[in-house]
Amino acid sequence: MKKVAVIMGSDSDLPKVEKCINELKSMDIPCEVHVYSAHRTPDEATEFAKNARVNGFGVIISAAGKAAHLGGVLAANTTLPVIGIPIKASALEGMDALLSTVQMPPGIPVASVAIDGAKNAAILAAEILAVSDEKIEKIIVERREKAKLEVLEKNKKIEEMFN
Amino acid sequence: MKKVAVIMGSDSDLPKVEKCINELKSMDIPCEVHVYSAHRTPDEATEFAKNARVNGFGVIISAAGKAAHLGGVLAANTTLPVIGIPIKASALEGMDALLSTVQMPPGIPVASVAIDGAKNAAILAAEILAVSDEKIEKIIVERREKAKLEVLEKNKKIEEMFN
Amino acid sequence: MKKVAVIMGSDSDLPKVEKCINELKSMDIPCEVHVYSAHRTPDEATEFAKNARVNGFGVIISAAGKAAHLGGVLAANTTLPVIGIPIKASALEGMDALLSTVQMPPGIPVASVAIDGAKNAAILAAEILAVSDEKIEKIIVERREKAKLEVLEKNKKIEEMFN
Amino acid sequence: MKKVAVIMGSDSDLPKVEKCINELKSMDIPCEVHVYSAHRTPDEATEFAKNARVNGFGVIISAAGKAAHLGGVLAANTTLPVIGIPIKASALEGMDALLSTVQMPPGIPVASVAIDGAKNAAILAAEILAVSDEKIEKIIVERREKAKLEVLEKNKKIEEMFN
Amino acid sequence: MKKVAVIMGSDSDLPKVEKCINELKSMDIPCEVHVYSAHRTPDEATEFAKNARVNGFGVIISAAGKAAHLGGVLAANTTLPVIGIPIKASALEGMDALLSTVQMPPGIPVASVAIDGAKNAAILAAEILAVSDEKIEKIIVERREKAKLEVLEKNKKIEEMFN
Amino acid sequence: MKKVAVIMGSDSDLPKVEKCINELKSMDIPCEVHVYSAHRTPDEATEFAKNARVNGFGVIISAAGKAAHLGGVLAANTTLPVIGIPIKASALEGMDALLSTVQMPPGIPVASVAIDGAKNAAILAAEILAVSDEKIEKIIVERREKAKLEVLEKNKKIEEMFN
Amino acid sequence: MKKVAVIMGSDSDLPKVEKCINELKSMDIPCEVHVYSAHRTPDEATEFAKNARVNGFGVIISAAGKAAHLGGVLAANTTLPVIGIPIKASALEGMDALLSTVQMPPGIPVASVAIDGAKNAAILAAEILAVSDEKIEKIIVERREKAKLEVLEKNKKIEEMFN
Amino acid sequence: MKKVAVIMGSDSDLPKVEKCINELKSMDIPCEVHVYSAHRTPDEATEFAKNARVNGFGVIISAAGKAAHLGGVLAANTTLPVIGIPIKASALEGMDALLSTVQMPPGIPVASVAIDGAKNAAILAAEILAVSDEKIEKIIVERREKAKLEVLEKNKKIEEMFN
Repeated sequence: MKKVAVIMGSDSDLPKVEKCINELKSMDIPCEVHVYSAHRTPDEATEFAKNARVNGFGVIISAAGKAAHLGGVLAANTTLPVIGIPIKASALEGMDALLSTVQMPPGIPVASVAIDGAKNAAILAAEILAVSDEKIEKIIVERREKAKLEVLEKNKKIEEMFN
Repeated sequence: MKKVAVIMGSDSDLPKVEKCINELKSMDIPCEVHVYSAHRTPDEATEFAKNARVNGFGVIISAAGKAAHLGGVLAANTTLPVIGIPIKASALEGMDALLSTVQMPPGIPVASVAIDGAKNAAILAAEILAVSDEKIEKIIVERREKAKLEVLEKNKKIEEMFN
Repeated sequence: MKKVAVIMGSDSDLPKVEKCINELKSMDIPCEVHVYSAHRTPDEATEFAKNARVNGFGVIISAAGKAAHLGGVLAANTTLPVIGIPIKASALEGMDALLSTVQMPPGIPVASVAIDGAKNAAILAAEILAVSDEKIEKIIVERREKAKLEVLEKNKKIEEMFN
Repeated sequence: MKKVAVIMGSDSDLPKVEKCINELKSMDIPCEVHVYSAHRTPDEATEFAKNARVNGFGVIISAAGKAAHLGGVLAANTTLPVIGIPIKASALEGMDALLSTVQMPPGIPVASVAIDGAKNAAILAAEILAVSDEKIEKIIVERREKAKLEVLEKNKKIEEMFN
Repeated sequence: MKKVAVIMGSDSDLPKVEKCINELKSMDIPCEVHVYSAHRTPDEATEFAKNARVNGFGVIISAAGKAAHLGGVLAANTTLPVIGIPIKASALEGMDALLSTVQMPPGIPVASVAIDGAKNAAILAAEILAVSDEKIEKIIVERREKAKLEVLEKNKKIEEMFN
Repeated sequence: MKKVAVIMGSDSDLPKVEKCINELKSMDIPCEVHVYSAHRTPDEATEFAKNARVNGFGVIISAAGKAAHLGGVLAANTTLPVIGIPIKASALEGMDALLSTVQMPPGIPVASVAIDGAKNAAILAAEILAVSDEKIEKIIVERREKAKLEVLEKNKKIEEMFN
Repeated sequence: MKKVAVIMGSDSDLPKVEKCINELKSMDIPCEVHVYSAHRTPDEATEFAKNARVNGFGVIISAAGKAAHLGGVLAANTTLPVIGIPIKASALEGMDALLSTVQMPPGIPVASVAIDGAKNAAILAAEILAVSDEKIEKIIVERREKAKLEVLEKNKKIEEMFN
Repeated sequence: MKKVAVIMGSDSDLPKVEKCINELKSMDIPCEVHVYSAHRTPDEATEFAKNARVNGFGVIISAAGKAAHLGGVLAANTTLPVIGIPIKASALEGMDALLSTVQMPPGIPVASVAIDGAKNAAILAAEILAVSDEKIEKIIVERREKAKLEVLEKNKKIEEMFN
């Protein structure tokens, strides 16, 4: 099975990125986690992206805040799909990271999820791998079913409380 | 080869979405184009998404403006990756469509590209299919090489003009 | 008397939505409360909206945060007026939910109140029912009179404090 | 049948408000149109709102740009539901009018539709009247069916063009 | 000497408005404080503004949050200069109140100060009265001189700390 | 009678500022117009402000775009009330000029009107002078009456057209 | 004399960047112009930055729109000061490019000028070189004097027109 | 060696500005710290800027919040490069200070760093001095190398934790 790379621009992003890692692990999707800064370790970030495909990765998830260039730097150096998690890490509440991630110019896309949307980045990575991997697709279907039941469960509780 | 679905919420989005369709065709990626509105034809949109995987699709691209719910409605009904193109179609310059597309709550992701980022949506779809399809990956590599040469060509012209 | 439906996209919205429920109850307007997610339980949300009129509802209130599609999904499946409460539930302070709720494209309106405007959603629902129900209109008039007296009371205290 | 009042803050808003008037007329909903400025004719605006219910109105639609206080001024003086259309009429692209309309403090709601959402204001007014008027509800159902068929028609054309 | 009226839309704004009152009192400028809501007590607010000039006021200061219509309602009913303090009282950090206050359409201005700029509202009121009152002008000059000395004092401390 | 100074940061602002000048002239309020840049002619701007009161001015109106520092520079050097007109002169639609004008720190206020609100700046200046000048107050009252009649006239036309 | 590098991310930025080049040339500051894309030619952009100092450059000016990563990519690979010009090239009016340029995380600064602030980028580069080059400083002083005279000239014309 | 001036508009900015001072000191770059307000001590701020070059300064760093005019006031009175740190000091999260700092009109640039980007202001100042000072350049290179090693160290820890 192809691996998912989770790259964060700073280890201070870990508390948020951990939800992504946990989600991947809970779906039994193999992942590798790294800290590479687009600005302080540009060579390492570039190198990682250039070799990601041959190193067995299927998707790269990038998490960065402020002027979040990491997703773009990785995407410029690989043909793998790159998912960007804009991290809220400044006075601007993550709007800077969102625009730096999502507004990529034509030619090199980054697939942006919500600000701090670490869990959804993992699910999107799973969906991408599931395009050609039925086992993962089954896991996603099961989790959706479970999520649906949880909502219905909560609905029942709320109904009992108020209706 | 898996197909890409291109769904637009209104046929008025076509002039922008056409860049996506053309990009897919130029990469020889089979695609199907539809107009389904999340609000005026919710059943048809839902139905399409529910059957997309068994109908041979690998990725769904959704284009919508204003309160762009289409990506979310499609994503809620399929486990295929859904790419959202926020269309600039209101006084708010596409910021409404961007936030409606990218800020999906945990559980159901939509992969957002830039406002009016139709070409990048096609490239992202190609990258997703290329995870398990070497032929498409080769096409992406070739196009990147070509894009790079174009930049260098332009660089040369600018250098001759000014240096 | 027609009932008001209060649908929230997640039970985590309850602390805010409760002000809406309490306001309705204090006006003796019968209401039903449910949790239906536009993305995790799209079928249930759709089903509820399709049957709301025949089930005796006169107004639907929808509360959702982030990419708040719930109001649009409900409105697409009923001809009842749908009131949307954009919930502040993300880094963007509810601006995402506001735009996802209010910027509905032509054809299917959602009546948006303020971010976290749960109390006003209840009053708006009452006003809608009061168009053809004099008893509710009387209640609204009384509450306005009471609110006015409260302001004048506070004015008096402030005047005594400073003037 | 109850009438709908359409109040605009300035006659320069007419080109946008006309879509609202036309939509109401095409649904055979009786309406009255007025120009009352919250700031230049506050007494007339207040007077109109105070008498609207006894004068046979069921809903008031208010259209105003910039610091759009008109909706609030009308709503403060009636228990009828007031629908606000924020008009794009300044450098800020209607964001000022949207926030002035939708962010009403607790007690007096204004039901906001999208910036320049004149058509949806009419439909929302129709939905409100339809709560107790089956004839109007039938008209809304027919128009939804028609809108749906139009989308499917356009879908067919697009399909023929591309698939 | 002409009086300054300080009108707040809600007594919950008092902690912020108090800085305005204190500043006025410390300059020996007579002021009257009231709570009038543009929406819950529109008649009282209107009445106050209509009589303000004959009642001896020279300036009206209005403080309101959210869709802050109070400044506009007062200004529409007096020819006295009205100063608006946009109060931060919502998820939108006062941006809604700022735009509702400052973006007044041509004809009826409101002089906006900064969000929560209560102290500056008092100083601006003093400057307005000082146009024709040398005594107040002297007080303003003295306070500026004092503020300047305070900055220079702080500068000295910082210089000793670091240079 | 005290004069009004109209200072613009650049002569390119003239087409917008002219509405201010014309409004003042039509009210027979004597005014002087100057171009002083806060950044290119800081000494001249400072000098003007320092002498404005003794030179017979009662109010200073400042018009500037982008990082609109002119209002602050003038206000720092006079105790006269300074009215700021934020000019829309950049990609950011005047939001930069608005915030640079209105968000003055405590101690030195600038009275901000709307973006490009040149006419209202003139009216606000008139209101300020009218605090101690009954003749100007009469002119303002007359103009308000005239504006009201114009609205009622337009209302009549619209009523004839639609009702 | 040290050279200034002007790097643009796309040759479509040339009409705006030309003002920067012209300004540098008019000050007799030697410059070199290149087109390097952070995403389509990351290696060339990186290479240029790594060698810029030894190749005789003193300052690098970077111009890019949308998710403007170019300034950050260059700055990550040189210790020369990098000036970023955020180019307005998208629906978001350059706000995306501004935040991508200015919100650099600690460690690697980019000196941002205004959106489309090409001329100021040239002047800032001149100021930086002038720190150790008296000849350039003299040129800047002369130009400031000239700019001042131009403003005063315009002031005179406006004064003649209105005063 | 040329000195760096660090000017803050208010001593309340010190906790943020201290990171700038410490960074400069840790690079052995001589600096002088002052508190000068653009509005409360305009003469002192102007005077400082006018004499900065002859007093041995090479760069001026300006830190200010809200309508942050200080950078512009300093830059208008010196040909030294002025770096602006927009300080988050208001309801608007520093967006007001950012736009007031970065959106300088053509002629007088201010080099803006991120909101609260005190450390980067110091590094940018160092880079500017390093254009003609090899010793400082060496220090910057060493610190970059150190920062890179720190990232790689953290990467290693994260790798051990998760891979």
